[in-house]
Amino acid sequence: MLNLQSTTPESWLHQVEANLEELLIDHAHCERKAAACALALIGYYVEDTELAAAMTEIVNEELEHYHLVIDLLTARGLKFRRIHPSTYGSKLHELIAKHEPQRAVDRLLIAGLIEARSCERFGLLRDRLADRELANFYGSLFESEARHHSTYVQLARKYTDEASLRQRLQELAAAEAAILADGDDFPRMHS
Amino acid sequence: MLNLQSTTPESWLHQVEANLEELLIDHAHCERKAAACALALIGYYVEDTELAAAMTEIVNEELEHYHLVIDLLTARGLKFRRIHPSTYGSKLHELIAKHEPQRAVDRLLIAGLIEARSCERFGLLRDRLADRELANFYGSLFESEARHHSTYVQLARKYTDEASLRQRLQELAAAEAAILADGDDFPRMHS
Repeated sequence: MLNLQSTTPESWLHQVEANLEELLIDHAHCERKAAACALALIGYYVEDTELAAAMTEIVNEELEHYHLVIDLLTARGLKFRRIHPSTYGSKLHELIAKHEPQRAVDRLLIAGLIEARSCERFGLLRDRLADRELANFYGSLFESEARHHSTYVQLARKYTDEASLRQRLQELAAAEAAILADGDDFPRMHS
Repeated sequence: MLNLQSTTPESWLHQVEANLEELLIDHAHCERKAAACALALIGYYVEDTELAAAMTEIVNEELEHYHLVIDLLTARGLKFRRIHPSTYGSKLHELIAKHEPQRAVDRLLIAGLIEARSCERFGLLRDRLADRELANFYGSLFESEARHHSTYVQLARKYTDEASLRQRLQELAAAEAAILADGDDFPRMHS
């Protein structure tokens, strides 16, 4: 359902569990960036009113999650701050085709794959984190990431035919798995 | 209250009244760009949680207005599309100081002045448009622009002292009035 081509390894779980503060701070930044990407899509495809409506919902939801993570940080006495982002987003961004309509397809499928990976990792955090408060928090966000994934893939259908969409989704999912396998050596939501 | 240093001339009203379709299309784009600017500010000043909360409200509200304008276009059988923007926003953007904390002050005050000008023009449209449906629409948006203006000026207070804030607001308002007086010769919300 999530169209991912790899499963997050145990090593990632151990890495972020030893650095929960950085995981949370990075997570908050991810929510903000997801809102900004959704809002940018409205501007790129102004005539697509279905996209505009769906992206508006996503912007609102991501910002809601952003504040939930910040509240969690505050409750734990941790200070929200800038941190070095993982290279995941920028590496995925480089894969986007330069010309329309493939550019729209790629932008939407990549946004969808990022949501899918977040969903997969939220599920892992929900099931395995020793910190049960955090585990429950990630459990509560799981469903919306899955839904966002479906929304993005569905919107991409308007810009290509089904066979091309399936093929491109496989290509991009393979690239996404390779980018993560390459990985960053610092703990992030998408390291 | 709005800190503006000029009053919109009759000629602007005549220009946009003869081009209501372009006014509405430009207005929708302005709402989207206002949402994007508010969201960007959250990312620039991540540690300012008061700003993040206020900007989140503004993002949601601007996107709500965006959809209201699009619905109005649709109801009138008009097609939303890209149009050439006025030079107002980019000219104001050039005035932003390069270094913090003045950069924060300028970003917030300029966002506040744009809201103030929208408010002034919405008031004019409300009072003078022969198209009473549109006049009422602009009347309904008037209050939120005034509120956004106050929010931005209030947030800027955290980054400077009161005397410097008043002085910079006057300088920027003078520049804003000059940019409009220079004007674009095509009909826009900020031409």
